[in-house]
Amino acid sequence: MKVRVFVSLKEGVLDPQGKAVGHALASLGFKNVGDVRISRVVDLDVAAETADEARKEGEAMAKALLANEVIEDFKVEVVA
Amino acid sequence: MKVRVFVSLKEGVLDPQGKAVGHALASLGFKNVGDVRISRVVDLDVAAETADEARKEGEAMAKALLANEVIEDFKVEVVA
Repeated sequence: MKVRVFVSLKEGVLDPQGKAVGHALASLGFKNVGDVRISRVVDLDVAAETADEARKEGEAMAKALLANEVIEDFKVEVVA
Repeated sequence: MKVRVFVSLKEGVLDPQGKAVGHALASLGFKNVGDVRISRVVDLDVAAETADEARKEGEAMAKALLANEVIEDFKVEVVA
């Protein structure tokens, strides 16, 4: 099954990478860009019998490795 | 307007980051994980009059900076 884990910084946490991209875009002439936030999407092939089992595996992997829960939130979707 | 640019490696391009995450997950005991692919999502606040204008800005920014079109594909969505 295809599991998608969407990892994004929590509201209010500064995004230095986003800030850098914002400045780079401005220097390239894109003057109408405000806040820039960058997130990660991890697509995994998971051998699971049911979608529910695949989702639980995705959540366990997100907690164990894929997301730093101090500063990041994550969402798990079972795609197929 | 909120513009979302989804950047992912082209089919067939090796994903070393994904490979590393896959090995790390296996070493943490997640034995049922196959292929792992990692993508980026860039959320931008764009000052534009219409959704179409915002989409065009997003595409121009993706081509100029956000995606390396040699090895990456991108999709632009106007979220709000």
